[in-house]
Amino acid sequence: MSSTTGTLYRVTTFGESHGPGVGAVVDGCPAGLKIDTDRIQRQLTRRRPGQGKLSTPRQEADEFEILSGVYEGITLGTPIAFFVRNTNAKGNDYMRWADIYRPSHADYTYHIKYGYRTPLGGGRASVRETIGRVAAGELAAQILEEELGIRTVAWVNSIGKVDSPVMDQPPQTAEEVDQVEVRCPHLPSAEAMVKEIEEAKLDGNSVGGTIGVIVYNVPPGLGDPVFDKLEADLARACMSIPACKGFESGSGFSGTMLRGSEHNDIFEPQNPPPQPGHRPGIEGVPTVQTSSNRSGGIQGGISNGMPITMRLAFKPTATIKKRQDSVNEAGEATTLRAGGRHDPCVLPRAVPIVESVINLTLMDAYLRQRAARPEWWERFKTRS
Amino acid sequence: MSSTTGTLYRVTTFGESHGPGVGAVVDGCPAGLKIDTDRIQRQLTRRRPGQGKLSTPRQEADEFEILSGVYEGITLGTPIAFFVRNTNAKGNDYMRWADIYRPSHADYTYHIKYGYRTPLGGGRASVRETIGRVAAGELAAQILEEELGIRTVAWVNSIGKVDSPVMDQPPQTAEEVDQVEVRCPHLPSAEAMVKEIEEAKLDGNSVGGTIGVIVYNVPPGLGDPVFDKLEADLARACMSIPACKGFESGSGFSGTMLRGSEHNDIFEPQNPPPQPGHRPGIEGVPTVQTSSNRSGGIQGGISNGMPITMRLAFKPTATIKKRQDSVNEAGEATTLRAGGRHDPCVLPRAVPIVESVINLTLMDAYLRQRAARPEWWERFKTRS
Amino acid sequence: MSSTTGTLYRVTTFGESHGPGVGAVVDGCPAGLKIDTDRIQRQLTRRRPGQGKLSTPRQEADEFEILSGVYEGITLGTPIAFFVRNTNAKGNDYMRWADIYRPSHADYTYHIKYGYRTPLGGGRASVRETIGRVAAGELAAQILEEELGIRTVAWVNSIGKVDSPVMDQPPQTAEEVDQVEVRCPHLPSAEAMVKEIEEAKLDGNSVGGTIGVIVYNVPPGLGDPVFDKLEADLARACMSIPACKGFESGSGFSGTMLRGSEHNDIFEPQNPPPQPGHRPGIEGVPTVQTSSNRSGGIQGGISNGMPITMRLAFKPTATIKKRQDSVNEAGEATTLRAGGRHDPCVLPRAVPIVESVINLTLMDAYLRQRAARPEWWERFKTRS
Amino acid sequence: MSSTTGTLYRVTTFGESHGPGVGAVVDGCPAGLKIDTDRIQRQLTRRRPGQGKLSTPRQEADEFEILSGVYEGITLGTPIAFFVRNTNAKGNDYMRWADIYRPSHADYTYHIKYGYRTPLGGGRASVRETIGRVAAGELAAQILEEELGIRTVAWVNSIGKVDSPVMDQPPQTAEEVDQVEVRCPHLPSAEAMVKEIEEAKLDGNSVGGTIGVIVYNVPPGLGDPVFDKLEADLARACMSIPACKGFESGSGFSGTMLRGSEHNDIFEPQNPPPQPGHRPGIEGVPTVQTSSNRSGGIQGGISNGMPITMRLAFKPTATIKKRQDSVNEAGEATTLRAGGRHDPCVLPRAVPIVESVINLTLMDAYLRQRAARPEWWERFKTRS
Repeated sequence: MSSTTGTLYRVTTFGESHGPGVGAVVDGCPAGLKIDTDRIQRQLTRRRPGQGKLSTPRQEADEFEILSGVYEGITLGTPIAFFVRNTNAKGNDYMRWADIYRPSHADYTYHIKYGYRTPLGGGRASVRETIGRVAAGELAAQILEEELGIRTVAWVNSIGKVDSPVMDQPPQTAEEVDQVEVRCPHLPSAEAMVKEIEEAKLDGNSVGGTIGVIVYNVPPGLGDPVFDKLEADLARACMSIPACKGFESGSGFSGTMLRGSEHNDIFEPQNPPPQPGHRPGIEGVPTVQTSSNRSGGIQGGISNGMPITMRLAFKPTATIKKRQDSVNEAGEATTLRAGGRHDPCVLPRAVPIVESVINLTLMDAYLRQRAARPEWWERFKTRS
Repeated sequence: MSSTTGTLYRVTTFGESHGPGVGAVVDGCPAGLKIDTDRIQRQLTRRRPGQGKLSTPRQEADEFEILSGVYEGITLGTPIAFFVRNTNAKGNDYMRWADIYRPSHADYTYHIKYGYRTPLGGGRASVRETIGRVAAGELAAQILEEELGIRTVAWVNSIGKVDSPVMDQPPQTAEEVDQVEVRCPHLPSAEAMVKEIEEAKLDGNSVGGTIGVIVYNVPPGLGDPVFDKLEADLARACMSIPACKGFESGSGFSGTMLRGSEHNDIFEPQNPPPQPGHRPGIEGVPTVQTSSNRSGGIQGGISNGMPITMRLAFKPTATIKKRQDSVNEAGEATTLRAGGRHDPCVLPRAVPIVESVINLTLMDAYLRQRAARPEWWERFKTRS
Repeated sequence: MSSTTGTLYRVTTFGESHGPGVGAVVDGCPAGLKIDTDRIQRQLTRRRPGQGKLSTPRQEADEFEILSGVYEGITLGTPIAFFVRNTNAKGNDYMRWADIYRPSHADYTYHIKYGYRTPLGGGRASVRETIGRVAAGELAAQILEEELGIRTVAWVNSIGKVDSPVMDQPPQTAEEVDQVEVRCPHLPSAEAMVKEIEEAKLDGNSVGGTIGVIVYNVPPGLGDPVFDKLEADLARACMSIPACKGFESGSGFSGTMLRGSEHNDIFEPQNPPPQPGHRPGIEGVPTVQTSSNRSGGIQGGISNGMPITMRLAFKPTATIKKRQDSVNEAGEATTLRAGGRHDPCVLPRAVPIVESVINLTLMDAYLRQRAARPEWWERFKTRS
Repeated sequence: MSSTTGTLYRVTTFGESHGPGVGAVVDGCPAGLKIDTDRIQRQLTRRRPGQGKLSTPRQEADEFEILSGVYEGITLGTPIAFFVRNTNAKGNDYMRWADIYRPSHADYTYHIKYGYRTPLGGGRASVRETIGRVAAGELAAQILEEELGIRTVAWVNSIGKVDSPVMDQPPQTAEEVDQVEVRCPHLPSAEAMVKEIEEAKLDGNSVGGTIGVIVYNVPPGLGDPVFDKLEADLARACMSIPACKGFESGSGFSGTMLRGSEHNDIFEPQNPPPQPGHRPGIEGVPTVQTSSNRSGGIQGGISNGMPITMRLAFKPTATIKKRQDSVNEAGEATTLRAGGRHDPCVLPRAVPIVESVINLTLMDAYLRQRAARPEWWERFKTRS
């Protein structure tokens, strides 16, 4: 199911970076919703390369067309197909080193997997593939916000060795994040990050980093035991983003150094006013909260009503302008020096992508849960 | 698909910790294989609690019965059902605090999700559920080893703050790992880990840690673009293990601090003799290797022929013997002090579980790849 | 997904006719339901061979055990595993012609598919496999009846050339059907059917026939466009029953001979009192009924609120006691004369199997629809 | 999974009859195949309305664009998206009776399912949706023919009461079928059918009929036990075509009137030269054939090497020009007289649709089987 994900909110993406275009089909979007196309376009624009001096100069409008499933702005309950034409498909830049396997790219693995590859760009491994996910994910985000109040906010948490303290005081909105081009809402850190990126860029090099994410207002009860634990599905979604090499939920790796008594999140009756991001309970089951959130809002694979927190690792972009040794399709040693368009740092653009794949995952968990227990929906829906 | 995973090697687990028993159904196991039941029993025994002084005193034989799909030791191609009866189902220990939500357990989330819960043990959130996965996963391990030479080896890499250098010199076999009860093959580290666990135990506390994994002899070409990237499916599998809160592939979080030129794995022609764990290429596509393996054997979501490396974070066991504040089902503040059987540290027992879920993932990717491209199978199979 | 079916009410069956036993795992059964085990046992007993003089003398109690997912009679929301041990596994009867391919059986096709086969009985092709489906399907039947009022009633409509007029006046309940052993509620037809079966039995021969089905109280809105049309999913479910070779929905083949003006079902306002089996509309959408029901309760693949009607064709049992020519595993011409236990006519026993697979299909459609549109559930649920 | 079908050759269709267009995404098409776009266009053209005097006058070129997955005519192994723009989307014809539920159409069921509907045309219930399936299915047909020699041929077997003897002497090729516009290869029957259709047309009425299908050169071993029996999956595929109300495999309903001794297909050693459509056996398993083919090429849900035969029932087109009583969205009695474009008989156009959904089903079964048993592929592939 390589290009399809989800059980009920089922997304299929298609398209290569240098073919006619890229898109996605969403099957399972409920009927009768007024689709907010501006919102989707905004998120696509956040994802787009060429947004500032830190990014690749490639300019693509990434304007989407809806090919089906919507009539006069209202969803029909039938598959919604999004399509974005490739307008800047300059394969030529790539042709120069068409027969060389670029280090740490998917060139070699695609070749040996399929026995065939196109000399043009990254094909499905290109970050351009994520356009379909972002469109489908932002539609999910709209529904999650309207029906449950859920809001997902991601940001750049570190670039190279420049870390930030944002995990401890996460932003409330995308606007806070988008204040600066590097999308780190802690401005002193942001400044240092910009320096790091510019230095790498001047050197023809690239940098990696981490993305932080918080999801507000997640009602308790999303996710399923065993294979569809919410953490498991979120990890799969995040690790399917190009260049993502690590995923943490809640305390993650640092939590392994604590004792149980230090790590456990103590339940409290909800006498004090609910925290932002905490939701009321359902019939027969009390409302609780926890005094800390090292669980990252998920216990036993199921959301507990506290904000969901995650951290993702992105390796430095594989494409660099420095000369590198490599091997060509004939198996001979050679060297390459990449031309073409590429970012010294994909982290800022990864922010909307991360939000989108998380929203896809939550949307599917939401529909599964309201199938399993409509009474749950009765209690937690915010839509009147 | 909460309790089912896989597209072609499809595993469904069932069973609670305190019901009649636990098991799994494997649909899609190829026909005509001589099933190695000793091997499966051995892995189940490695997973079993009560194996030594570091572990819970709970004694369960975990002997499995095959209910279907095998005739005179040969697989029929039909579903193979594994079943292990619960013989030591003392729910009583748990009854004392049946109406209290144990901190950082799944008690509350199950209650609010289902609106119903059993006062006995952890239900599907119990690590006992993993028995079915271990049986199904070790059958996969046998097939992967016989048909491709693939071998997965996991070990305890750190306990609490006691880290080890094993990621840099990983063990070749499970025997190396099982030399010591704590399953860390670096003996000085193992000693310190034991101290850490015993100290926590004496204190009625618990510890977490990390598991390292290496997979040898993975042929290039496993995994699919986009949603079924090998890293994504492995992350999902690992994060679905109870208490797992973090996952890294290859360089993971530490790789985010390198520049692209430092991180990229340079391709080399395979003039020097193949490294252990490296496999020959297929028709028309050359054989390569990389001079480093920060990609952890996966590029673009597809195996590249180098060993696959991963690291997993496990939080400290939630059950501790210390008195803790909590809330009961009536929403009232209360305290609990756990009795019952529990481990101060689950890491050593997690080793075979991690191996098993990884083998399930690789097995499914293998069958998908040989469907997509039987020529690939022709070249990479080790079975004559 | 050979042995698994369903998206949300997901059933996996396992077991061979001559191994340890047969069973099913149901994943996705809602939590908190009081499971009616007597009802399930009753349906299993209806399916059981050896119930009368028309049937095989094989006596098996088919008593089921629940291995998981239920605590004190209440469903937990976790997988429910049903298991029935084989107590009468006399493979010996079969061994005599173990190496001969029985005509019109699955012996040859299993052999060439798997390259391996057991000489014992029919394996997964045996009608004994349906035990798991009947258990899972009767649990679905209970839920459908309690939550929506849906009731599925099947009967033997014809045996060989003996047809009955029951399709035009279908029975209301299983009790009407079970009045006579042959399960045809039109008694004069039933008598002639019994004669037909006994004649075949005396001759060492077998007979086929048709099963009629009606489903009462199906609310409008079940089923999905395109691939999961209700008729398509029902056809798949029915054609997956051993020996089923034909499926009709509504007017079926005979409807092809009418003109559109004769065939169309005219909508009527629901001024006259609702027909039995007709349900009220939902908010904003009026309640209608049709003056005829040639659509068989399904239009555009979606239920329209009228009773669903179907007819299924079952070929005569392949096993007969007459000597037949055949071929053995060496490819040589030979003859065989079957011993072993077998029915001259499986139709009466097929009645509960047909009901069960239909209920599995409706249950899954129901859960999918309440995920897509919880307001729909609000209006059509009969449970207060 | 309403709009997605298949496990390994996975097809998702999208699009409404009166939106921007219709299409399909095929995920899982093997890489490196030279795609025969002319062949696909030919099949789309066969499906197209307005091909002759028997059909609707609607003229649409149905020219397709490939949006992804193909580079210089070669498949990349990535999703192939087909798209056909709607060029003749005259919704106006429909607007006149926008608020009336057309009898035996999907208008009412869509409305009550989704709580929302477009006044334009049939949406996803329109036969125009099948364009995506035909494109995806003809690509499958090409692969099945090149790799296994499989060829699927469908024809119009009866129209209204005019039956033909073609099931007994099925055509070998589509060319034979396409000799006459009505697509019945028995010319005397074809003449009578044309009369039947013209008579209905003059009367503002419509006719139904049956489609016959034969699949040549199917190797033994396709299909799986239990839920994915080949007959079950074929039935689902066929019953998902608009207006299809019945499905038979092999002897179907007429076979129910035979005794077992009359119905069983006797195995024969393959001494006489192989019949057309019969394939050689695999290693260790002999080659057989049957002296008759009442099983329709499928035994135990698995192909046996004989041609697969099926018959499908299509109800008369629901849209007629006669005035009919009905009900409007307010629940009031009214009458309607359809304008708009529509066929008095869809059977000839259904021929390529039937072939396509069958090829989709066989393609998926083929990929599943070569995953399960690559040795099988080694023996049965016809590609050198």
